[in-house]
Amino acid sequence: MTTLDLDNQTCATSLKLLGDFWTLRIVDALSTGTMRYCELQRRVDNLNPVTFTDRLKKLEDAGLVQRMEKSKTGVSYCLSNRGQKILPVLEAINTFSREAHTT
Amino acid sequence: MTTLDLDNQTCATSLKLLGDFWTLRIVDALSTGTMRYCELQRRVDNLNPVTFTDRLKKLEDAGLVQRMEKSKTGVSYCLSNRGQKILPVLEAINTFSREAHTT
Repeated sequence: MTTLDLDNQTCATSLKLLGDFWTLRIVDALSTGTMRYCELQRRVDNLNPVTFTDRLKKLEDAGLVQRMEKSKTGVSYCLSNRGQKILPVLEAINTFSREAHTT
Repeated sequence: MTTLDLDNQTCATSLKLLGDFWTLRIVDALSTGTMRYCELQRRVDNLNPVTFTDRLKKLEDAGLVQRMEKSKTGVSYCLSNRGQKILPVLEAINTFSREAHTT
């Protein structure tokens, strides 16, 4: 048996979504809290607007990122409760990067 | 502070490597044990040879996958000890896919 349960459609969908460098960078940036569009884009190394919007839209469509529009501050984004559940994946990558380079 | 320690170069490198759908699929396939080239390629949905070779090479160059050549059985691949440390990342994706769809 493999580690991933790819026979399960939700797992295959999750892998497709999370197996992407920029998506993980956006989630990581949002792990610090709510952020305005421009600030978020700046945090992910000024990723080109097309890719940035595409990845953000995919996260929004999957219910992992919430878009909030306020008249005063403009558009902001944050991780939804479900989106917060991606953070252990980032932590696992962090742990891997530490462990894999010390052994 | 974000979840990933991207100021650390090894973390940035790990994210670049693991933030890729096909790389994660190859690691997942190899989590079951040593595998011959053709079998491995078949397991990752007959991924096109160019992408397959590229991802496999990157994993090999990073010391995460070992290539073994035997006169009788041809070329086989397995996860190295360091490569095994990627498995918690896959487990975290599995857990996410279960939890994110039940809440």
